[in-house]
Amino acid sequence: MGSPEKFEGWLGKTPDSVKGNMTWGEFEPKKWEEDDVDIKISHCGICGSDLHTLRSGWGQTHYPCVVGHEIVGTAVRVGKNVTHIQEGDRVGVGAQARSCGQSDCPECKAGIPQHCLREQVGTYDGVYPNDVGRSFGGYATYNRTNARFVIKIPEGLDSKDAAPMLCGGITIYSPLRQNGCGPGKTVGIVGLGGIGHFGVLFAKALGADRVVAISRRADKRDDALKLGADEYIATGEEKDWVTKHRRTLDFIVSTVSSAKMPLSDYLKLIKVGGSFVQIGAPDNGELPTISAWDLIGGNVKVGGSAIGPPWEIAEMLKLAADKKIKPWIQTRPMKDANTAVVDMDEGKARYRYVLEA
Amino acid sequence: MGSPEKFEGWLGKTPDSVKGNMTWGEFEPKKWEEDDVDIKISHCGICGSDLHTLRSGWGQTHYPCVVGHEIVGTAVRVGKNVTHIQEGDRVGVGAQARSCGQSDCPECKAGIPQHCLREQVGTYDGVYPNDVGRSFGGYATYNRTNARFVIKIPEGLDSKDAAPMLCGGITIYSPLRQNGCGPGKTVGIVGLGGIGHFGVLFAKALGADRVVAISRRADKRDDALKLGADEYIATGEEKDWVTKHRRTLDFIVSTVSSAKMPLSDYLKLIKVGGSFVQIGAPDNGELPTISAWDLIGGNVKVGGSAIGPPWEIAEMLKLAADKKIKPWIQTRPMKDANTAVVDMDEGKARYRYVLEA
Repeated sequence: MGSPEKFEGWLGKTPDSVKGNMTWGEFEPKKWEEDDVDIKISHCGICGSDLHTLRSGWGQTHYPCVVGHEIVGTAVRVGKNVTHIQEGDRVGVGAQARSCGQSDCPECKAGIPQHCLREQVGTYDGVYPNDVGRSFGGYATYNRTNARFVIKIPEGLDSKDAAPMLCGGITIYSPLRQNGCGPGKTVGIVGLGGIGHFGVLFAKALGADRVVAISRRADKRDDALKLGADEYIATGEEKDWVTKHRRTLDFIVSTVSSAKMPLSDYLKLIKVGGSFVQIGAPDNGELPTISAWDLIGGNVKVGGSAIGPPWEIAEMLKLAADKKIKPWIQTRPMKDANTAVVDMDEGKARYRYVLEA
Repeated sequence: MGSPEKFEGWLGKTPDSVKGNMTWGEFEPKKWEEDDVDIKISHCGICGSDLHTLRSGWGQTHYPCVVGHEIVGTAVRVGKNVTHIQEGDRVGVGAQARSCGQSDCPECKAGIPQHCLREQVGTYDGVYPNDVGRSFGGYATYNRTNARFVIKIPEGLDSKDAAPMLCGGITIYSPLRQNGCGPGKTVGIVGLGGIGHFGVLFAKALGADRVVAISRRADKRDDALKLGADEYIATGEEKDWVTKHRRTLDFIVSTVSSAKMPLSDYLKLIKVGGSFVQIGAPDNGELPTISAWDLIGGNVKVGGSAIGPPWEIAEMLKLAADKKIKPWIQTRPMKDANTAVVDMDEGKARYRYVLEA
């Protein structure tokens, strides 16, 4: 095995690249360190963050960039300091490529490196400390990442199914788990897009008594029920949905980030002491104004969640393998990445695109 | 013992009554039921809600009203259906006088009647179902309340000290307890008024490792430290307070309800996964706009809390008696209620006024 000196991938060179204008070319990965793993990429999911980054939507992107942080492939070069990955292993990388990893870092020590305040490098568009270069994502031939964020894919889980779990999946698996999703719990999932569809699948797999999919319109009802949802609320079309479902959910995870969402009404669906967890951010980041009365009235909390640590990703993949979870994805050839990105941007994915090498 | 047919108290007849214009007079208590207790009032704390109600600040008040929901006195008449109170007992009543109490009510069954959706009657300015009359508070000679909300005051706790705990105290004791205040925890209390001062006392009594009082100006630092705070942050006067205290608190309870409070900065003081609990509401109810990034960045939650159930009040009173907690209060003669209300409105209380019969 082994890896070439230069990798190739779909380069985004301007904000316009999101409109189908990425160009294929060479790029220089970060300098090799003996804590790294090189992965020959077989699959890479397309995540909403990829589009935000291509168009410099969440701040200025360092062009040229290569996006994609739902990477699956084969470990073809493994650093000498790496013990948990062997050459030839089927592995994956999610949205995080680096944290400080020091034993005196409260977050790294607690196993939540995604919240490390000292050092944060994303899997793409990141700049490594110590001049070792930049990070490039998975719309490419190879990926090089610190082994701490490289996870073995369990047997029984297809690579194309595992890929979109590495960011889209963990983004909702983590808050489900952290908020106690399991037997005895009733869970609401707002929004039935790529992440929301994982929400329904994982909430059921974790054993929730009842999973309620919540969307504005009724057109995704059939899909939601097929995915396993026990109930569907179309907030834009059902009268009295707030009264009917008042205080019936232990917690809600919201994958919708519109500043116009009926947050105050959503909060009324939650049982006393329950939570509303937001996992998306509107363009300007601002949530709808919250009334103190909405929080005080039912001791309800509004929180957020960001991806999840490697150990939790591994746990999710194992659950997916054990429970034979099949996400609803469509594979697209890596060579057609431009068209796939445009289709994704137009909301055509049902429910996640995965590029296949 | 026994009680007269009509009670007397300080009647608020117009919004102007908050400016020292309450008038002493007779009022008719709710019709006697055999679940009730009549209390001869010895003490009644002055709570911010009293002022809001006198001036119709939180919606139109039903004048004439008698405010006061931090009531302590002697049970002088006890209904035949009441088992836990005896005539002659020293008892107290807080802010709630009624909930449905049915076994099929999720909230009443769960022991959180303050969140009952079917029936809510406040200790004053409330209207009872079944035409039994209205509720009147404790700036009065007697009070009549359903025994479910009448609590025995433990020995060793002075009546004047117990009174302000019945609303002001429980309002912060409850979120402290519900958020795990105790050994190993570091707790922030925003605002050092009547409720905040109880926050410092109770957080220490519950065994928190470190209690940090947070206020805009430095002028309450000495008081905070005397009350037992381990640290004081004057956000308006200290540079770099956010950076210095970043992620040092397990949770914060905020007693300040200004829409201008630096909420985003407060959230940065909380450890990953921690909470910010709001127990006041600005006039229009709206909290400062929350950025989704502030929540997502540290998996932080923003919640609310309202008073507490009778069992929790009893628990708090026992802790106060056991730990010999002495709140900082000033007694004022019941006859001087008008002056005391005006002084309270002007922020002169250090930290709570208690009317004494």
